[in-house]
Amino acid sequence: MPEFTIPRTASAYDYPLLIKNLFFCPVVDNPEQEIVYRQLRYSYRELRQRVHRLANVLTDLGVKPGDTVAVMDWDSHRYLECFFAVPMIGAVLHTVNVRLSPEQILYTIDHAEDDVLLVNREFLPILEQIRGRIDTVRNYVLLNDEPSLPATTIPFDGEYESLMAAASCEFDFPDFDENTRATTFYSTGTTGMPKGVYFSHRQLVLHTMSTMTGLAVSSRQGRFHTEDVYMPITPMFHVHAWGIPYIATMLGVKQVYPGRYVPEVLLELFDREKVTFSHCVPTILHMLLKHPLAQKIDFTGWKLIIGGAAFPRSLCIEALQRGIDAFTGYGMSETCPIVTLSHLTPEMLDLPLDEQAAVRCKTGRTTPLVNLKVVDSELNERPRDNASAGEIVVRAPWLTQGYLKDHKFSERLWEGGWLHTGDVAVRDELGYVRITDRSKDVIKVAGEWVSSLELEDIIAHHPGVAEVAVIGTPDDKWGERPLALVVPKAGSGLTKKDVSHHIKEYADKGLVNKQIVLLKVLFVEELDKTSVGKISKVTLREKYAGGIAGDKAR
Amino acid sequence: MPEFTIPRTASAYDYPLLIKNLFFCPVVDNPEQEIVYRQLRYSYRELRQRVHRLANVLTDLGVKPGDTVAVMDWDSHRYLECFFAVPMIGAVLHTVNVRLSPEQILYTIDHAEDDVLLVNREFLPILEQIRGRIDTVRNYVLLNDEPSLPATTIPFDGEYESLMAAASCEFDFPDFDENTRATTFYSTGTTGMPKGVYFSHRQLVLHTMSTMTGLAVSSRQGRFHTEDVYMPITPMFHVHAWGIPYIATMLGVKQVYPGRYVPEVLLELFDREKVTFSHCVPTILHMLLKHPLAQKIDFTGWKLIIGGAAFPRSLCIEALQRGIDAFTGYGMSETCPIVTLSHLTPEMLDLPLDEQAAVRCKTGRTTPLVNLKVVDSELNERPRDNASAGEIVVRAPWLTQGYLKDHKFSERLWEGGWLHTGDVAVRDELGYVRITDRSKDVIKVAGEWVSSLELEDIIAHHPGVAEVAVIGTPDDKWGERPLALVVPKAGSGLTKKDVSHHIKEYADKGLVNKQIVLLKVLFVEELDKTSVGKISKVTLREKYAGGIAGDKAR
Repeated sequence: MPEFTIPRTASAYDYPLLIKNLFFCPVVDNPEQEIVYRQLRYSYRELRQRVHRLANVLTDLGVKPGDTVAVMDWDSHRYLECFFAVPMIGAVLHTVNVRLSPEQILYTIDHAEDDVLLVNREFLPILEQIRGRIDTVRNYVLLNDEPSLPATTIPFDGEYESLMAAASCEFDFPDFDENTRATTFYSTGTTGMPKGVYFSHRQLVLHTMSTMTGLAVSSRQGRFHTEDVYMPITPMFHVHAWGIPYIATMLGVKQVYPGRYVPEVLLELFDREKVTFSHCVPTILHMLLKHPLAQKIDFTGWKLIIGGAAFPRSLCIEALQRGIDAFTGYGMSETCPIVTLSHLTPEMLDLPLDEQAAVRCKTGRTTPLVNLKVVDSELNERPRDNASAGEIVVRAPWLTQGYLKDHKFSERLWEGGWLHTGDVAVRDELGYVRITDRSKDVIKVAGEWVSSLELEDIIAHHPGVAEVAVIGTPDDKWGERPLALVVPKAGSGLTKKDVSHHIKEYADKGLVNKQIVLLKVLFVEELDKTSVGKISKVTLREKYAGGIAGDKAR
Repeated sequence: MPEFTIPRTASAYDYPLLIKNLFFCPVVDNPEQEIVYRQLRYSYRELRQRVHRLANVLTDLGVKPGDTVAVMDWDSHRYLECFFAVPMIGAVLHTVNVRLSPEQILYTIDHAEDDVLLVNREFLPILEQIRGRIDTVRNYVLLNDEPSLPATTIPFDGEYESLMAAASCEFDFPDFDENTRATTFYSTGTTGMPKGVYFSHRQLVLHTMSTMTGLAVSSRQGRFHTEDVYMPITPMFHVHAWGIPYIATMLGVKQVYPGRYVPEVLLELFDREKVTFSHCVPTILHMLLKHPLAQKIDFTGWKLIIGGAAFPRSLCIEALQRGIDAFTGYGMSETCPIVTLSHLTPEMLDLPLDEQAAVRCKTGRTTPLVNLKVVDSELNERPRDNASAGEIVVRAPWLTQGYLKDHKFSERLWEGGWLHTGDVAVRDELGYVRITDRSKDVIKVAGEWVSSLELEDIIAHHPGVAEVAVIGTPDDKWGERPLALVVPKAGSGLTKKDVSHHIKEYADKGLVNKQIVLLKVLFVEELDKTSVGKISKVTLREKYAGGIAGDKAR
C-alpha cells in the first residue's frame, strides 16, 4: 500500500514520532515491573526482549514494511507485544473485531488486505468456516493457551510461543516516516459493512502524549501515575483499548491483561493484582458492581474511565459511594479515541457525591491539542451557555484521515475540514461538553437544534403520559417541526392542551429551546417498535414524512 | 528567511503542531485564573484578549510571517504575551539576552535580522549606545513600567500599553506548517561571539507535551498540576524560561512574573502569591535560602527544578530540610532545554533525606520521547553500571537543528547524527544519568574515560593536600595519562606515595576507574590561576603538553 509511506527523512535532527520512541523511552525505566496475563507473569525486561523476538518472527515469515498483520485474540500480553512489534517494523496492525459475524470478519480481513493472521485457538471454528474464501493471508500463527495443540485444518506456520523461543531477542528497529500507517480496525456501523479507520505512528504517539497529560495533571482526581496498576476492560481490538496500553507501557506501570471479559476473572484479577486504573463501558461497571463476588471487594481508589455510552448518573453515584474515582472519557473509533475527559476542577472535588456525579457524567473537557467545537449547520460555534445545542466537530492531531478505501464516507466525515461526530451537545462556560443526542435524533427547527430525546424526557414526566416519541416532520416554513406522538395513560383524561402547557412551563423557565412553541402534539394508540422492542423512529419518520393534518397541530 | 517555511498543508485532517494549539486548548479552561506581574494582576480571559491585541499591534507595524520580533525585557506578563502572539502570527520571537555586553547584543540583533524591537526602558542606555549601528530594525516599541515616558532619542512607534489599548482584541490566527521557526536566542559560548539556536512550532509543542508529562506522572513528587502557582526564576530570555511558561499556560495555573530577580521581590512574591512551582540555578536557591527574609517564610511543598549547573548535595539537603521538593532538570540551550528530570522512584521517596538528595542531585532520567545515550568516541553505548563514563549524546523531537547561519559548528554539534552535549556522565541500571565532567575535563586513558573532577575531589580529601588539579598529558602508549598537580599543605610532610596510596584505596573499593593506576603525581608550589582566581586548566595543559620527566611519575 504505497500511499501510506513517504521516503525516509535524512536530516540528523529530524526525529520522527514513532511508536518505538514510546517503547524505548518510558517515563520510568522499570525493568523489574510486571506484565500479568491471568496466571502468567513476566517483567518489562522480558517484554522488551519479546517485542524484539516477535519482530524477528514476523520478518522471518516475510513481513515487510507496509504489510498488514492481523490479530484475533482477547486481551493478552501477546496483544500488547503486537501493539509494539508490528508497527515498529513498519507493518500495519489490524486488530480484528472478533465480535463481528464470520461474514463480517471475512470482509474486514479481505478489505484490510491482511498478509499474516495471528489467531487464538478459540476462534478456529470461525476461521475454518471462512478460510476457503480468504484471499490475501499468506501465513497463519496460532495463539494457544492450552497445554496441547488443537486439531485444525489451518496450515499454521507455527505456534506463537515456539516461534518466539526460536527467534533472536535482538532486532534493529528502523527509523521511517512518522506518517506511516501503524494500525487499522473496523467500526461497526448500524447499516452496511464495517468501515475501516486507520492511524499513523505520529497520530498514536500524539494521542498517547496528550491523553497521558490529560490523565496526569489533575491535582487530586483521575490521575494516572507511576504507582498505578493498569487493567483494560475495553477490548484491545477496539480502538487499541482506547490507547491506554501505550500510555501504561510508557509510564512503566504494572499491567494486567484479563483475556476474555468474564466477571469472575475480572474481579479476581482486580483484587489479586491490586488494580488501580481501568476503563470500561457503563454496562460492564454495572455488571461488576452487581456481581456477588464484588460485595467482598474494596474498590476504593479505583480510577475508572467510563465511555462508549452515556454514563448514567445513578450508576456514577453508586460507583462513587463505593470509593471508585469514576469519570467520563469521550471519543469514537474515528478519533483514536479520546478527545475529552470529565475531570473535575479543584473546586468541584469538594462537592457532595451526587453533585460531582453530574459533572463526572458529562462528556467532559478537551485533552491537550484538541480543538473541539459545538456548531450549528454552518459550522458556527454555538454559545457556551450549557443550553445551545449543536453538533460536536473536532480537529486534533490524531483523527483518522478517513475510512479505508471509502472516499465517499471519508468526505462526509470531514465535511468543511472538521471531523463530524454526529453527536449533539451543549457546552458550558468552563468548557464542559454534555452530549444530548445523536444528530439523527435532532430536529432542526428554523436553523436551531431541538433535541428529541430531551423533549421526550420532559413529556414522559407528565403523569398522564404512558409513552412518547418525538420526531421531526418536514415543514415548508421552518424546515422541520417537532412532532410529539403521545400514548395517553388509560383513564388519565389527558388532553393535548395538558401536554402543551406542561412543555410551556419548561420553556418559560428557559429549560428548553424556545423553538419548542412550534411543537405539534398527536395522540396515538401505540408506537411502532423494532424487533427488540425499542421505539422505531425510522418507521415513525416514514409514517409521518408527509406531515399531519393541520388541525391536529397545537 | 524562506528556508524556514514550507507551503501550508491542505488536507483537512492534517493538524499541525502549532503554538496556538497550546494556547487555545488549555487542559483547564480557566478564564478567572490569574496572571501576576509584581503589583499588576489580570485574568486568563484578559490574557487571551491581550494576545489577540498584540497580534494586531505587530501586524499593524507591518510584521509579516517570517519576520523577527525581538524583546529586551525582564520576566513579565508582556514577555508571556510575546511567547504566544509573535510565533502565532508566523513571526520569529528573538528573546534577547540582556546580560550580554552591548557589543554582543548588537551582534545578536544584527545576526538574527530583527525587524521589530520591544525594549524595556531600563535598557535604553544600552540601546542608545548601539542604535546607530543596528542595520535591520524598522520599528521600536517601548516597554514601560513607570508613570511617565522617558526622554529618549530612539524613534519609538509607541508604548506597549497604548498600542495594545488601541488595537482590536480579535485576530484570526492562521494555520501554517508546523516546521515554521518560532523562536531564536543566543547561547553564551566561552569563546567567540554568541551562537544562535532556533526552534520550530512543532519542537516547542512537543517539548511542552513531553516535559509536562514528565512533570506530572510521578506518584508523589515534583508533580506539576492544576492547583499549582508558577513563578519562573530562570530568565524568559534564556531558553524560554526552560519552556515552563508554555506548560503553565496550557495547564491554566496561576502565573507570577517577578521582573528582574531581586531577592526581596522574589521572596515577597513567593510568600504573597503562595507560589508552589519554580525553577532556578543552584546559586539563586542558595541566595534565597540565606536571605534574612527567608527565615520567616515557610517553603514547605515548593516544587523546584534545579538546573544550569550541578546541584550541590549539601544545598539539596538544606532545601529538603526546609520542605522544598527540589530536584534536577538537565538540558542546554541547544536542547530546548529539558531532556532529563531527577524524579525519584516510589521506593526512593521513602529514603532518608540525605539519600534522596544523592538521587535528586543526579542529572536524572529522560523525559518521554528522548533518546539519550552515554557513549564512547565511536558512539557505542557505555554499560549502565554507574561507573563507565562517556559523553551524553541526545536525539529528541525538539533539539535545535544547528546554530543559526553557522554551518561548521552545526555539523560539529550533530556529528554522527546525534546532538553532542559535551557533558561526560555515567548511568545506572534504572536509567539515572549523572554528569561527572565537561568533556574537555575528561582524560581518555586507553580508550576509557577518566574524570579529572572526580580525581581532584578524591585527592583533595587527603588532609595533606592544599590544592590539586588533574589534567591529561599526551602518552604514546595510552593516548593520555592523568597527571595530578598537587600543592602539599605546608608542614604536612606529604609524599607522592601518600597520594598514590590514598587513591589506591578508592580504586580498590571500585570507586574510581581502574585506569587510575596510570596516574602520575607531581608536587608543585602553586597552580596557575585565571584572572578571576579559578585554576586555569588551559595554562596547565599547555605547560605540561610535553609530558614530565619519567622519574617524577609514580
